[in-house]
Amino acid sequence: MSLKANNPNKKTWLTVPDNSDFPIQNIPFGVFLTRNDIITIGTRIGDTAIDLGALHQLGYFSGIPLTEDIFLQDTLNDFISDGKKTWRLVRNRISEIFDIHSTGLQHNEEHKKIVLFAIDEIEMQLPVLIGDYTDFYSSKEHATNVGTMFRDPENALMPNWLHLPVGYHGRSSTIVPSGTAVRRPMGQTLPKGAEKPLFGPSRLVDFELEMAFITTDANAMGEPIDINEAEDYIFGMVIFNDWSARDIQKWEYVPLGPFLAKSFASSISPWIVTLDALEPFRVESPKQDPEPFPYLKQSGKHSFDIHLEVDLTPEGGSPTTVTRSNFKYMYWTMAQQLAHHTINGCKVNSGDMMGSGTLSGPTPDSYGSMLELAWQGTKPIALQNGEERKFVHDGDTVTMKGYCEKNGIRIGFGDLSTKLLPALKA
Amino acid sequence: MSLKANNPNKKTWLTVPDNSDFPIQNIPFGVFLTRNDIITIGTRIGDTAIDLGALHQLGYFSGIPLTEDIFLQDTLNDFISDGKKTWRLVRNRISEIFDIHSTGLQHNEEHKKIVLFAIDEIEMQLPVLIGDYTDFYSSKEHATNVGTMFRDPENALMPNWLHLPVGYHGRSSTIVPSGTAVRRPMGQTLPKGAEKPLFGPSRLVDFELEMAFITTDANAMGEPIDINEAEDYIFGMVIFNDWSARDIQKWEYVPLGPFLAKSFASSISPWIVTLDALEPFRVESPKQDPEPFPYLKQSGKHSFDIHLEVDLTPEGGSPTTVTRSNFKYMYWTMAQQLAHHTINGCKVNSGDMMGSGTLSGPTPDSYGSMLELAWQGTKPIALQNGEERKFVHDGDTVTMKGYCEKNGIRIGFGDLSTKLLPALKA
Repeated sequence: MSLKANNPNKKTWLTVPDNSDFPIQNIPFGVFLTRNDIITIGTRIGDTAIDLGALHQLGYFSGIPLTEDIFLQDTLNDFISDGKKTWRLVRNRISEIFDIHSTGLQHNEEHKKIVLFAIDEIEMQLPVLIGDYTDFYSSKEHATNVGTMFRDPENALMPNWLHLPVGYHGRSSTIVPSGTAVRRPMGQTLPKGAEKPLFGPSRLVDFELEMAFITTDANAMGEPIDINEAEDYIFGMVIFNDWSARDIQKWEYVPLGPFLAKSFASSISPWIVTLDALEPFRVESPKQDPEPFPYLKQSGKHSFDIHLEVDLTPEGGSPTTVTRSNFKYMYWTMAQQLAHHTINGCKVNSGDMMGSGTLSGPTPDSYGSMLELAWQGTKPIALQNGEERKFVHDGDTVTMKGYCEKNGIRIGFGDLSTKLLPALKA
Repeated sequence: MSLKANNPNKKTWLTVPDNSDFPIQNIPFGVFLTRNDIITIGTRIGDTAIDLGALHQLGYFSGIPLTEDIFLQDTLNDFISDGKKTWRLVRNRISEIFDIHSTGLQHNEEHKKIVLFAIDEIEMQLPVLIGDYTDFYSSKEHATNVGTMFRDPENALMPNWLHLPVGYHGRSSTIVPSGTAVRRPMGQTLPKGAEKPLFGPSRLVDFELEMAFITTDANAMGEPIDINEAEDYIFGMVIFNDWSARDIQKWEYVPLGPFLAKSFASSISPWIVTLDALEPFRVESPKQDPEPFPYLKQSGKHSFDIHLEVDLTPEGGSPTTVTRSNFKYMYWTMAQQLAHHTINGCKVNSGDMMGSGTLSGPTPDSYGSMLELAWQGTKPIALQNGEERKFVHDGDTVTMKGYCEKNGIRIGFGDLSTKLLPALKA
C-alpha cells in the first residue's frame, strides 16, 4: 500500500507554524483529554489537535474496517492491534481530509467545532497501556563510555556486547508522559570507601536520552519473529527519558541488574510517530563486526536519521542545550532488538515498549547522559546562568527533542519535558 | 473484621476428599472456562469449582458492595482492586453458603446446577492480568549456593545481599498457568573454553521453585508503602516456577541481569490462595543480621509455614520427588520486598506479581533448582525409572506442590504442572 501521506508536496488547510514538528506529513497518534473532559484518541497537525473519535463518528473513516469505538478509548492498544494495513489506511485518510485541496471537513464549520482543538486546550495522556517494557543497551559509544568509567578502558565492552543486543526487563507502572513531574527517589547507596550502605535521597539523579518503539501483537508464545518481518510489528516511536539514580544503581545492580535505580520514573513523549512517517529518513546503521548470527542478520537501511537534543533548564532560568546526538548512532537496529527479544519464544503484545538504551554519539558533546557528559562529575557542564551541573538538581527541567529533516520536510516528536521534584523526605 | 472463614471446626455440605488442598477453610480465587464456554471468576471446595459470577447474579452476595459484573470478568484485577475489606466479606459469605448448616443453595437443586462444576469439567485460566512482574532473590541458601558455584565460596553473598531484598523486573507476557506446556528456548551460549558464542537450543533448562504474591493497588507514584501496612496490599499467593535457561543466562546476564534466559516462560498455579487463608500458618522469618534499615524493619511473624515439593516425571514414566523445601526459609519477607520495591516511589497496581526467588532450604535435598540439586551437573539426580537428571529433559513434566498443615487443616495451592517441549528447530 502506498505511503501517499508522506508526499512532500502536500499542503494542509490547517495552519502549521514554521519549523513545526507536525506538518501534514507526520500524523502521529496520541491520547488526550479534551476541554469537554472526554478522553479520545487523536492526531496533531501544526498546533491543532484532531479528535479521531469524533471524526470517526461523523463518518470520515467510512470504508475502512474499524470498530465503532476504536478511537473512543483511553489507549491506542486496540487500534495498534488492528495492524499495519489499518494504520496506513487511517493515516492516508487523515492526510486526505486535511489536504488543502480537500472538500468536506474544511468547509464544514459545525464539524470543525467538534473535531478540532487548539493544542493548549487539551491534556496529553499516556498513549498506550504498556504491558511489558524492555530497555536495550544498544549504543556502542554509551556502553564503551560506561565500561571505561566503571570497569576497564582496555576492555570496556563486555564479551557478549558485539554478539547480541543486551537488554533487560523494566517497570511499566511508572512510565509517564511529558509534563508529569518526577520525584527524586529515596534509596540505599554505598558511598565511596564506606563499609556500610546509607539510606537517603539519591544524590546522582541522571537522565538518559533514548528513543523507544511501540509494538503490535507480533507472535504466539514460543515462536520467534523473523528479522525480515520485524519492522512490520513496530507501530511507531517516541522519545524516552530513562531516569536513572546512579548511586542507587551502583549498589543494587549486582548480580541481577538495575531495579529501583530506574523504576522510580521513566518519561515518554506523548505522540507516537509512525514508522511510516519516518520512512523517508531511513539510513544505514553502523557496520557490524563480528557479523551477527543469521537470526540477527539484515541488509539495507534499518536505522533512521533522527536528530536529538537535551536542554536543561534550572528553576526560573533559561535552557542550556547540554547535548546533541542522533538515533542513527545505535549499533543494533530495532528489528534486531525485536528478533533477539523473541528468539527464545518470548511473546510480544500490542502496546509493549522497547527502549534503545542511552543514545550517545561519538563526540563528548553528543553523549546521552550527565554521567558521560560530565564524565562522572569530573567535567561539570556549564549552564547559561553561570551554574554548573554534574547531575540533575531538584527543580531542573529536562527537555528532550527529536526530529528528522530532509528536503524541507521536518517530522518531529514534540518536546519531552520533565521537572525533577525534591525527594519526599530529606 | 473477623476471619470466620478460617474456623477449623467448620464443615461443608460439598464433598471434600481426604488430603484435599481445598477444604472450606481455603476458598481461593481463580478464573475458569466453564463447560458452557463462559469465562468466569470462581472458587473451589474439594473437587467442586464454584462459579462466583452465577452466585452473584442469583443474589447470594446481597449486602456486599460489589458491582454487578465484578465476577463476570476474565481476570481478578477489578475484584482485587476492591480491597481487603471486600475480599474478606466475600470469602466469609462463600464460607457461609457452603457451611454444612446453611440452608439456601444447599437445598436449591436448580441453583446448584448453574453454580457448581466438577473440577475436570472446567479449564483454569491465568487468574490476573499481570501488569508488572518482579522477581526477588530472597533465599539466603539459594543465593549462597549460586555464589559458591559461580563466584567465590568465601564471599558467596554479594555485599548488598544482607542489606536489601535484591530483585529485578521480569517479563509478564509469558507467564502461563499450570497445564500450559512450555518450549525449550533457542539462544546464544558460550560453551566453556570457547572463544565465540554458539546459537542453538538451550542445553541447561532448569526449574526454579518459587512462590509469588499478587498485589492490589497500593500507592500513588512517588509514595512508598509503609512496611507495617504492606501486608494489607497483598491479595494472595501462588506457586511459581521461574523456568530458567542456565547457559543462555550465563552468557547474556552481564551487566544488566537475566533476560531471555527467563522470559521464554514462567508458570503459576491457577488458584490464588488469600493471605487471609494462610493466617493460621504464620511463622517467624529467619533472624536478620545486620539489622535492616528502619524502612525494612518489622517484628512479629511475617512468614508462612508452606511445605513445598517438586516432582519430575519423564515422558511416560512415574514421578520422582526431587526436592522438599519450605517458604519459611525465605530471608526477606513479602512485606519487606514490597516496602523495598516502593521506597523509590515505584507504583504498585492491582494484579502485579512478585516472585520470592528460588526457595532453597538448608540441606542438599531441599534445594529449589536442578542447578543446585545436581550441583552444576556434578551430582546427577536419580529418577524412579533408573534414569538420571542434571537438568530438565524434553518431555519431562515438572510438578510443584505447596500446602500448609496444622491441627488437621490443610490449606494447599493445587498442583503447578508443566511439560517441557523440545525446541522449535533442532
